[in-house]
Amino acid sequence: MSEILKGAAVIGQSGGPTVVINQSLVGLIEAAVKAEAITKVYGARHGIAGMMKGDLVDLGAESQATLEAVANVPAAALGSVRMKPVAADIATAIETFKQHDIRYFFYIGGNDTAETANIMEQQTRAMGYQMRCFHIPKTIDNDLRVTDHCPGYGSAARFVAHAFQGDDRDNRSLPGVKINVVMGRHAGWLTAAAALGRRDPNDGPHLIYLPERVFDPQSFVQQVEEIYQRLGRCVVAVSEGIHNAAGTPFLQVYAEMSGSAMAGMKDSHGNVQLSGTGALGDSLANLVKEHMGSIRVRADTFGYLQRSFPADASPIDRIEAREVGQAAVAAATSGEFTSGSVALKREPGSTYRCTTFITPLDTVAKYTKDMPEEFLGEVEGVTQAFLDYAMPLTGGIEAMTDLGMFPI
Amino acid sequence: MSEILKGAAVIGQSGGPTVVINQSLVGLIEAAVKAEAITKVYGARHGIAGMMKGDLVDLGAESQATLEAVANVPAAALGSVRMKPVAADIATAIETFKQHDIRYFFYIGGNDTAETANIMEQQTRAMGYQMRCFHIPKTIDNDLRVTDHCPGYGSAARFVAHAFQGDDRDNRSLPGVKINVVMGRHAGWLTAAAALGRRDPNDGPHLIYLPERVFDPQSFVQQVEEIYQRLGRCVVAVSEGIHNAAGTPFLQVYAEMSGSAMAGMKDSHGNVQLSGTGALGDSLANLVKEHMGSIRVRADTFGYLQRSFPADASPIDRIEAREVGQAAVAAATSGEFTSGSVALKREPGSTYRCTTFITPLDTVAKYTKDMPEEFLGEVEGVTQAFLDYAMPLTGGIEAMTDLGMFPI
Repeated sequence: MSEILKGAAVIGQSGGPTVVINQSLVGLIEAAVKAEAITKVYGARHGIAGMMKGDLVDLGAESQATLEAVANVPAAALGSVRMKPVAADIATAIETFKQHDIRYFFYIGGNDTAETANIMEQQTRAMGYQMRCFHIPKTIDNDLRVTDHCPGYGSAARFVAHAFQGDDRDNRSLPGVKINVVMGRHAGWLTAAAALGRRDPNDGPHLIYLPERVFDPQSFVQQVEEIYQRLGRCVVAVSEGIHNAAGTPFLQVYAEMSGSAMAGMKDSHGNVQLSGTGALGDSLANLVKEHMGSIRVRADTFGYLQRSFPADASPIDRIEAREVGQAAVAAATSGEFTSGSVALKREPGSTYRCTTFITPLDTVAKYTKDMPEEFLGEVEGVTQAFLDYAMPLTGGIEAMTDLGMFPI
Repeated sequence: MSEILKGAAVIGQSGGPTVVINQSLVGLIEAAVKAEAITKVYGARHGIAGMMKGDLVDLGAESQATLEAVANVPAAALGSVRMKPVAADIATAIETFKQHDIRYFFYIGGNDTAETANIMEQQTRAMGYQMRCFHIPKTIDNDLRVTDHCPGYGSAARFVAHAFQGDDRDNRSLPGVKINVVMGRHAGWLTAAAALGRRDPNDGPHLIYLPERVFDPQSFVQQVEEIYQRLGRCVVAVSEGIHNAAGTPFLQVYAEMSGSAMAGMKDSHGNVQLSGTGALGDSLANLVKEHMGSIRVRADTFGYLQRSFPADASPIDRIEAREVGQAAVAAATSGEFTSGSVALKREPGSTYRCTTFITPLDTVAKYTKDMPEEFLGEVEGVTQAFLDYAMPLTGGIEAMTDLGMFPI
């Protein structure tokens, strides 16, 4: 048992937002306001950046009605940040913490966020400033280690599954080849969710390309052609992270191959920009057109809607996102942990149920988790084991019914 | 009064699908099955193409449970078609009609579909084949003349409004310039719906560009910069149909200007391909980057999700789409009309309510309807009059609540 610290708490949100990230925020606030050990509940605007600047707000002063409403609003209500702080940045933040007697650090985000919490824990310990450091999981990418799944994923998976259902029916109405690009630079979890709305083998997506596999443009166009010849239509799900055997993103390979201006589209980290552009989808559509000639080929890039569309969140995802926030406060004020990351554990039994537990920060920090082999199929992309895993997280997918089409 | 014909009915769906087009189909089937004058209810696969080939199914044999389920499924359950039939095509279809004693022609679609119904009516009359020809309105573009609005628009407008709400909050979390391209080649109705989720002047979209106005790239980048300087972020709604003073699509102008390969992206009608590609959004993002330097600029093209996303249809749109189908059968079997298009009329009073009426086919056929001047604002894009017009059609938009952000 460790000492139960008395002091203020600070909450921050970090990384790409989700539609349920504010559920976790509100879960944290609700629990922290009630916790005896916690004297004040502060929010930092734009995560660690706000902590460094002392840009804090008083979350304990928010009304219950506001909190309930904000919980249902997508994207980080406190503002988010993409920043990997160095030791000097952490030291600056700790000055703010000392000034306000902040003894509880709660940081909502993905693996980089867990890494920040980990560094914060090490640095405060090294300098003898007692603080509890907790990471609350959040990512549509579902690529955190240890946890069964990540809050935010279920809602994004639901959106992607529904999007493919509608798009597949659109493509039956006016047949052609349709390519949809789904978020996920390193892991295929979200792209794989495209399969959740299928009812039979003729339903799209007919092909799913994940970053867990090497992407071969020649196989791709041949596989599209094979489906199109058989069904007269083809819907394809492509992860933005597809790459060649050397790990080079397809878009970069294509841009260099075709001498296209797309080669210049790099993001601020020097990576090829994959999100917020239609270049990948358009490049794949061009490949298909070159191979198959004058058929109807279209590409959509689902883009930021996957993580922000406010009107189709997963009900269970909302609940669990709230719970991981509450669990972080419970752990931090229990005397049992000095730091940790909240994780979800799927309980045995036929009815889906997850409980929370605490895992050390360094088991979650830095590295991500790919889809396991047992979830990866052949060209259809995923296995039944994946569908069984992912379906409960979405809260259930729309039914799609066809006419009987009785002959006359 | 005209004679009440006894005979079979055929139903077809045409043009770009919507999420409620099958409500109209089911409204037609339900009413036609009950109508004494109608002996059989046939469906044509892929509209006029199926009628020409005799590719018909027996819709009267569908169960009520199937019909209710199909009504909620997006995209044309019978299959759709993009075809402007010539006289010989119509003559071929009429051979099918004679063979099955089809005396009622119901065609669900937009202005081109109404034109097909109009030609069908003229040609059957000229050759002395008695038939009732009715058009049932459907288009997310909302650009049909006479009717108050088009079934399909309310659901698409709801999707677009929700998409912008979420995206605006995403862009508050991680600020930058975000450009979203919305469907609508000729009229700005759907792009204008981006404004329906705004609560105050700081909410995005901060700029809305509609095809009813001339698009000037220089003004565009200056207006984006002005908003970004003021708020530190900017969300932009752009219609895919933006064009210069000569009416040339912006994307074509840009492609020729920049010598880009995009110039080659023409659709099967020889138009620059606007849907199913991210090229327009990416071009606009490039303009902003060239003008403003190294800020975060992203573009999404909402694409086919706008007309096919199954999980966020407007409740009132569903009801009205069903009603226009029923109204077509009522009119066709009333003895009052030999042909016509079903239209919606907004009743006076503070509570939204629409009723149906019949307008001659040639008042709806061929030409489209732009947004009227009273709905067009300055750079913010739309007026309160437009919001008052469009909001009831969506069934209501999500509330978005901010934290109070109380200082400490």
